[in-house]
Amino acid sequence: MNNLFFNRVTILGVGLIGASFALALKKRGICKEIVGYGRREENLKRAMNIKIIDTFELEAAAACRGSDLILFSMPVGSFIETAKTVRGSLKEGAIVTDVGSVKGKLVRDMEDLMTEGVNFVGGHPIAGSDRSGIDTASSDLFSGAKCILTPTEKTDGTALKVITELWDTLGATTIILDPDEHDKIYAAVSHLPHIIAYAIMNTVADVNASYLKFAGQGFKDTTRIASSSPELWRDICLMNKENLIELIELLKKNLDNLSAHLQRSDFDALEREFERARTFKKNVG
Amino acid sequence: MNNLFFNRVTILGVGLIGASFALALKKRGICKEIVGYGRREENLKRAMNIKIIDTFELEAAAACRGSDLILFSMPVGSFIETAKTVRGSLKEGAIVTDVGSVKGKLVRDMEDLMTEGVNFVGGHPIAGSDRSGIDTASSDLFSGAKCILTPTEKTDGTALKVITELWDTLGATTIILDPDEHDKIYAAVSHLPHIIAYAIMNTVADVNASYLKFAGQGFKDTTRIASSSPELWRDICLMNKENLIELIELLKKNLDNLSAHLQRSDFDALEREFERARTFKKNVG
Repeated sequence: MNNLFFNRVTILGVGLIGASFALALKKRGICKEIVGYGRREENLKRAMNIKIIDTFELEAAAACRGSDLILFSMPVGSFIETAKTVRGSLKEGAIVTDVGSVKGKLVRDMEDLMTEGVNFVGGHPIAGSDRSGIDTASSDLFSGAKCILTPTEKTDGTALKVITELWDTLGATTIILDPDEHDKIYAAVSHLPHIIAYAIMNTVADVNASYLKFAGQGFKDTTRIASSSPELWRDICLMNKENLIELIELLKKNLDNLSAHLQRSDFDALEREFERARTFKKNVG
Repeated sequence: MNNLFFNRVTILGVGLIGASFALALKKRGICKEIVGYGRREENLKRAMNIKIIDTFELEAAAACRGSDLILFSMPVGSFIETAKTVRGSLKEGAIVTDVGSVKGKLVRDMEDLMTEGVNFVGGHPIAGSDRSGIDTASSDLFSGAKCILTPTEKTDGTALKVITELWDTLGATTIILDPDEHDKIYAAVSHLPHIIAYAIMNTVADVNASYLKFAGQGFKDTTRIASSSPELWRDICLMNKENLIELIELLKKNLDNLSAHLQRSDFDALEREFERARTFKKNVG
């Protein structure tokens, strides 16, 4: 397909990811008009003024009417309610996709809410940031990033092709994963680290918040993602809570294990565990 | 004191920190000769060839003989044994200092091992890295860094002044802390984050090591310090184990708390905890 082009694109949630997606489409000239929808009119006005979007609507249904491509880029906790609101206004042939950090049941629920002739393709570009908002948006945010797509047996083949080509065009590498497998993986490599970053900050603050001024670069890096949006991550963590709760238990076992080595002053066992972690780390970069 | 100058300086442990210290002294022209000591002759030869040190010894006592300044920059677990080996060879008037990440009892033990006329001043520059070895050494590693000094009631005032001026000269900001207070603080802002970084890596590997290839920047930053030297951090964690074990328990309580909010799908409580963490994070940078 060499003629990837959308007449009208709707961005539901004009934050860092939604705005970067809009800028990326514009930069590559693959859409005519972008309409934004969001909760804060002031943000939408600014996004329009700085030409991230062409126009905006304060009602999600109005924003989706007549659009060929609809992107859900709001916090995942609002997807279903919004989908219910807009489903009656979707044009036949429209493709609905998303950038949510959880997939699994959410993807199946979104599919079930699509009307005749409207297709949903679940997506998750690995390009988040602890920063948020349109001011940090970039047309190249997805260049070189991975983008996970999570088709199911219900996914329309043509819609999947379009969305795959779309992310390719934006410079991302698409990877196909089962929606539930996606959630198991990202519970481990993303949602757990966020929980931990928040937990470390609160642990140190519980002891003595004034200790924080002695922190070096290691602490800063380890807790960078504790700056992430609480609302966004509340939704993500809750929508993947079964996987996450299991991983928290597993992490606690690993901590208990290290604590036991410390208690017994077992130099060899402790070094072995650290070495094991370092070996895996080398494979991640 | 405007005439800070050392005729002979000994670096016990020529790794990232020891080599950077040597380069920093040379760059500022405040020493005549630097002798290195370490376990690996090959490393010492290379350090000499690339002019980090001027000469080296394979016996710690020989390396310390006649030196005005002796820096302990080996893993902290080797300090006491090495101090016992070299104490008979220390010149009267010599100052012994260190860059160890634990202080507390180690500082008091080191003080007790000093001979008549030799003074120990405990130090800890906050300038480590997950990298190690002389190839990443830099004469400016300490520029803009904090350096904690931990004098006790036994510390010689003149020696403390010399070491303070030394770190000032290297561009570091010195901060005085009680040795035990130092260990409480750094257990929280440094040793705990290392334990966690190692524990996250091992947790994900326990689940499925192949998940690691899906990791994004958040995971990479959160686990950066899992690349740190296992031997170095084994020593540090074990020498501060009482504080660390206590903090691991406190972290587990924070994780249990978050897990309970997830279990109950308590959106507000979860967001409140994340928001609390983010607020503290803002103060750290």
